[in-house]
Amino acid sequence: MLDDKKYMKMAYEQALKSYNEGGCPIGGCLVDRNGEVLGIGHNMRVQENNPIIHGEMAAMRAAGARESYAGTTMYTTLSPCMMCTGTMIQFNIPRVVVGDTVNSYGNEELLKSKGIEVVIMDDPDCIALVKKFREENPKLWTEDWGQEYN
Amino acid sequence: MLDDKKYMKMAYEQALKSYNEGGCPIGGCLVDRNGEVLGIGHNMRVQENNPIIHGEMAAMRAAGARESYAGTTMYTTLSPCMMCTGTMIQFNIPRVVVGDTVNSYGNEELLKSKGIEVVIMDDPDCIALVKKFREENPKLWTEDWGQEYN
Repeated sequence: MLDDKKYMKMAYEQALKSYNEGGCPIGGCLVDRNGEVLGIGHNMRVQENNPIIHGEMAAMRAAGARESYAGTTMYTTLSPCMMCTGTMIQFNIPRVVVGDTVNSYGNEELLKSKGIEVVIMDDPDCIALVKKFREENPKLWTEDWGQEYN
Repeated sequence: MLDDKKYMKMAYEQALKSYNEGGCPIGGCLVDRNGEVLGIGHNMRVQENNPIIHGEMAAMRAAGARESYAGTTMYTTLSPCMMCTGTMIQFNIPRVVVGDTVNSYGNEELLKSKGIEVVIMDDPDCIALVKKFREENPKLWTEDWGQEYN
């Protein structure tokens, strides 16, 4: 059994690092069945002017091109968007742990319908960090989610 | 009206470039309503050891973080996988042109269900290039698609 709190804390520390850099505070961490961290990272929309590097995608990138994702768990500090959801379905990641379904929510049922185990932690630190970010920078929050800010 | 053949040829040239580099021969091109190319690129699984840069994702990355995708068209030489499909849904790309639904197929109906216009070109050059690649490198083809190669 993986220590979900431990890995979510690692993902949260990535989110906090991104916040302190002026970026979107969302982190991801991909872990194998033995607890080895395969890849970890955070949203890079601001840092790289790159819309496709959400937290989960940063973890996928850091883990490199792999032959298999069997037995892996993806930790994400925020409920996954449709891009990240599609990615986890495509690459057959069997387990997803979500740190925050308060600030966004919606693709958990789609993941489950594909046979992916979804664990919702609703960690207070994850929730508070994104809540603060949304209040401080609603335009960046909205656009990172692929929506137009009016 | 955009000249779909012109932009698909540009995406195909990216695919051919990747093939000649030993990579996966799939290209993408994001174009705005006026015909300006916002981003163009190709699969980078081999070149960057990066599983998330499919052709469409390379085009998204090259286009940078944008305020809106209204009026854009994504050209992809190959039918989009679930990652790229999820990305185009998330970022509200309203139109997708697909160069090859012979070597893979499956997410066109999902795109349409989200109100996205899907145009299937089935361009002989796109189809022939991936067919050749699949025959030459079935392991890379399979793993790029997120499947285990046995």
